Amino acid sequence: MDSLGTMRRTHHCNELGIGHVGEKVILMGWVLRRRDHGGVIFIDLRDREGITQVVFNPEINPAVHEKAHRLRSEWVIAVSGVVDPRPGDMANPKLATGEIEVLIDQLFILNTSETPPFPLDEDKEVSDGLRLQYRYLDLRKPEMTANLIARHRAVQSIRGYLNARGFLDIETPMLTKSTPEGARDYLVPSRVNPGRFFALPQSPQLFKQLLMVAGLDRYYQIVKCFRDEDLRADRQPEFTQIDMELSFVDEEQVIEIVEGMIDALFRETIGRDVQPPFKRISYDEAMSRYGTDRPDTRFAMELVDLTEIAAGCEFKVFRSAVDGGGTVRALNAKGCGRFTRKELDDLTDYALQFGAKGLAWVKIKEGGEWQSPIAKFFSAEERQRIAAALDAQVDDLLFFGADKNATVFQVLGELRIELVRRLDLLDATVFRFVWVTDFPLLAYDDKEKRFQALHHPFTAPRDEDIEKLATDPGAVYSRAYDLVLNGTEIGGGSIRIHQRDVQMKVLQALSISDDEAREKFGFLLRALEFGAPPHGGIAFGLDRLMMLITGGDSIRNVIAFPKTQKATCPLTDAPDKVARRQLTELHIRPDWQE
Amino acid sequence: MDSLGTMRRTHHCNELGIGHVGEKVILMGWVLRRRDHGGVIFIDLRDREGITQVVFNPEINPAVHEKAHRLRSEWVIAVSGVVDPRPGDMANPKLATGEIEVLIDQLFILNTSETPPFPLDEDKEVSDGLRLQYRYLDLRKPEMTANLIARHRAVQSIRGYLNARGFLDIETPMLTKSTPEGARDYLVPSRVNPGRFFALPQSPQLFKQLLMVAGLDRYYQIVKCFRDEDLRADRQPEFTQIDMELSFVDEEQVIEIVEGMIDALFRETIGRDVQPPFKRISYDEAMSRYGTDRPDTRFAMELVDLTEIAAGCEFKVFRSAVDGGGTVRALNAKGCGRFTRKELDDLTDYALQFGAKGLAWVKIKEGGEWQSPIAKFFSAEERQRIAAALDAQVDDLLFFGADKNATVFQVLGELRIELVRRLDLLDATVFRFVWVTDFPLLAYDDKEKRFQALHHPFTAPRDEDIEKLATDPGAVYSRAYDLVLNGTEIGGGSIRIHQRDVQMKVLQALSISDDEAREKFGFLLRALEFGAPPHGGIAFGLDRLMMLITGGDSIRNVIAFPKTQKATCPLTDAPDKVARRQLTELHIRPDWQE
Repeated sequence: MDSLGTMRRTHHCNELGIGHVGEKVILMGWVLRRRDHGGVIFIDLRDREGITQVVFNPEINPAVHEKAHRLRSEWVIAVSGVVDPRPGDMANPKLATGEIEVLIDQLFILNTSETPPFPLDEDKEVSDGLRLQYRYLDLRKPEMTANLIARHRAVQSIRGYLNARGFLDIETPMLTKSTPEGARDYLVPSRVNPGRFFALPQSPQLFKQLLMVAGLDRYYQIVKCFRDEDLRADRQPEFTQIDMELSFVDEEQVIEIVEGMIDALFRETIGRDVQPPFKRISYDEAMSRYGTDRPDTRFAMELVDLTEIAAGCEFKVFRSAVDGGGTVRALNAKGCGRFTRKELDDLTDYALQFGAKGLAWVKIKEGGEWQSPIAKFFSAEERQRIAAALDAQVDDLLFFGADKNATVFQVLGELRIELVRRLDLLDATVFRFVWVTDFPLLAYDDKEKRFQALHHPFTAPRDEDIEKLATDPGAVYSRAYDLVLNGTEIGGGSIRIHQRDVQMKVLQALSISDDEAREKFGFLLRALEFGAPPHGGIAFGLDRLMMLITGGDSIRNVIAFPKTQKATCPLTDAPDKVARRQLTELHIRPDWQE
Repeated sequence: MDSLGTMRRTHHCNELGIGHVGEKVILMGWVLRRRDHGGVIFIDLRDREGITQVVFNPEINPAVHEKAHRLRSEWVIAVSGVVDPRPGDMANPKLATGEIEVLIDQLFILNTSETPPFPLDEDKEVSDGLRLQYRYLDLRKPEMTANLIARHRAVQSIRGYLNARGFLDIETPMLTKSTPEGARDYLVPSRVNPGRFFALPQSPQLFKQLLMVAGLDRYYQIVKCFRDEDLRADRQPEFTQIDMELSFVDEEQVIEIVEGMIDALFRETIGRDVQPPFKRISYDEAMSRYGTDRPDTRFAMELVDLTEIAAGCEFKVFRSAVDGGGTVRALNAKGCGRFTRKELDDLTDYALQFGAKGLAWVKIKEGGEWQSPIAKFFSAEERQRIAAALDAQVDDLLFFGADKNATVFQVLGELRIELVRRLDLLDATVFRFVWVTDFPLLAYDDKEKRFQALHHPFTAPRDEDIEKLATDPGAVYSRAYDLVLNGTEIGGGSIRIHQRDVQMKVLQALSISDDEAREKFGFLLRALEFGAPPHGGIAFGLDRLMMLITGGDSIRNVIAFPKTQKATCPLTDAPDKVARRQLTELHIRPDWQE
């Protein structure tokens, strides 16, 4: 193999055009494709930036041409030559460099390559396991390289925006204490302190609040966080947060800053104008119209409240839902009146997963006639009122939910998304943002028989609701705000509690004893005694955001070295066994089956 | 307490000057000091940026003046008022805002504060433990805030520089496999994979090499790394690296990029021109002149080789060192001829720590006379030759080392630094950079009876030395380069091995079996089979670099939330006990004394 020596590239592989004709250039990269034609060898040379066609003609240098015969896919070469226009009919308009080729007079073979286990220039389906095992090859695919470049641009945009607005990039610890009230922690045994463990942070929440107490005013960090939870397509054991916190602000100021950041981000990453200010919707309205606090507002198909009509109808299922304090709601799947029985059965099964006891449906036929197993329970007038409420037309398909509020919202909310997915109405190139605000502070946990924080225990209640914390905790609204994009929560934040007595009242409403409070986050309570300023912030999930920006369907495609759904890395074989000596040093013993 | 409501600051506390006189402003911050004078209350209001004097005069608003009587140190307030020039003799030229004060007509008390456990506006000695326990107060000190702001500016400068040069900011995993041949790993038990452990990365070394194999060309990351080692003033369990890697480059190109980065960093962080290109020195020359591969070149006091003179002298200690294949070297502590016996004894004790068997010294008296226990062993001519070699003048003090090379280098190298420290010649505002190059690839480990990598096993040997790997491994030089600033290694890197067969030869020279190689880093060896480009890089320790830039003496002062020397956090009490249930989930059992 040849040595690089002191040779330097003059251009990358996406740079040369007609303006460079006649120039002597040096390119380096990988052999993507080789074609031999009329005794001449054509190589598509690839680097991170693109592709340039290089030509080995025996008339230019027979020895070099001879050497080029050895080249195979993914070999690494350096070539020097002169830029030449391609004959008019040979130009490739799909390639940025398609008007030229380089006539090579020197070739250095810097490395060879085995044949890759999957082709890099075809859109062939390859198993996730193989892609992750040979991640260094998978990342050579232009679309994967493009994802990492988009992510690079995104963090650059975010940092530039926040730096210009007085935010300080400050690092918080990775080896820390577990965040109370969160998901399961990853633990790190301490060698020096037997029986004690660090936790990897689920978020820098308490540290960023302490930075505000420290008077640092505006903080941000793009930072790894960790949750030891079961994985899904949009979850990884370690994930990256865009985390920020501001002092002396209210909700409006946080929202203003964030909208500017998101606007700049989309413009600078994919050249899209997302046109802030974004719409806002209260939690209650989001639930009632979309059945979820993460509404996908790219399409309508909103939920309609039929409780009043249902209260007087003959259909027992509807009546008993209303009588039991529940609700009857419906949505109109426009133009889906020709769904087959099989499709309706599938959708019913889908709905059952979310707690539905069944799924009532109505097909609207010519003349407004109802085709439905439940048609007979309704008078003509009731049918008319329901049709009017849902704006039902011929060929529409109506679905009904009748149960407790929470169940109806979840069933119809999920059904709405599933319908739109089946109808292929989800356009990944449309970006619909909506702020969800006015959340309840607490939600009653039926299993644990106590209130839980809907966000986290440091979220401020509305000033006017503080007194209700002791008397009617479920009626307290918070100062939280979530940013939802196309039905995915991409960011969540709040104005925080900065007064110790308010924090204590919230902890009491959460049934956390004084002892427990002191043990778990006594240091925050103590900090609130020394002049904590009013403050608030927000955190975004960068991986999910990048998935949406790049139009992908898995966060694994926007992470250089992700884990599988079983939290393993097929590339390095992590997690791995360790020597018994290492465990002894950490004062722990095995408790597993070998 | 008052609510912030929708009030917004108009200025920060370091912003107002004569140009703002007459303007109505709103400021928010902390009460630093309060003075009552002639019925008027003066408050120094502090925020992150600085201090502004605000004035409560009963004639402006008696109710507000009355309320201001309650204010105490570190209370958080919002005030509105009109900017007024201070009377000429009351101006404070030490303060950016010293020419004005703000006459307050509205006061909102946003939070109260207990009296801090240590004063924030005095240069009082406070224990490290207390400072870390109340870190949110310690960080309010202007010099601590300034350190974090300098660190913010530094990472901003580095990112800006590298972004402009085609580097991609790419995240590598935190939950990974242990780096072979390194320090002790922090381990993270896997819940899903019983008996298996992740390791927190000691550096992203292998991942950045894989990114080069993936064709990403130029990578950087400012990233947390972890080492479970015993701590010192300049070591933390988690530390931050500026990590980078480049494809298709040689040493010169890496050095060129780095010198530009360091130049921009010092200019943009503290306004200093460090004037690259930096000097270079080979490892061998650094050892011979300074006794160390991390030479502090802010001063001379270089080592002088006296082996040739000593070879013929009568002094047995010198003679036997030379006869045993060792060396005799000396340094001249200029002007130290009046050191007391006590000082000489102290220095001898100091030298003994580093393996010296004694410390020979000579005081040069009037007429060149030697005052020394060893004077009698040397002829007049020898004394003259030694004095000439060391440029010895009246009142100079000479120290000698005679032993194996390594011992002499270490003893005299350490003695040199200690002397300069005692003479208070170390100027933290002078920055002397030097590249150390031409390292040996391997060093023989007498204990383990095998060669160890001087840097790491992925460092490329010089092309011309590859054949010696099998025959004379100790004579192989590497393509590594370290950047040293004022005697501290701030960065280290190398051109890496990109050819599988060369990597195997190096592993063999390190006595690593094929099996062990496959198990520990088989994935790297495999990657080298698929077209790895020539590549190299470097990594800098950001914490140490910031310590030097800010002129401090502990990395703890440039980290927001550092750990103690016992790897604990007095603020949060991490590491902490965990519930037995958590251990059970992780398949481990306690092995410690409760």
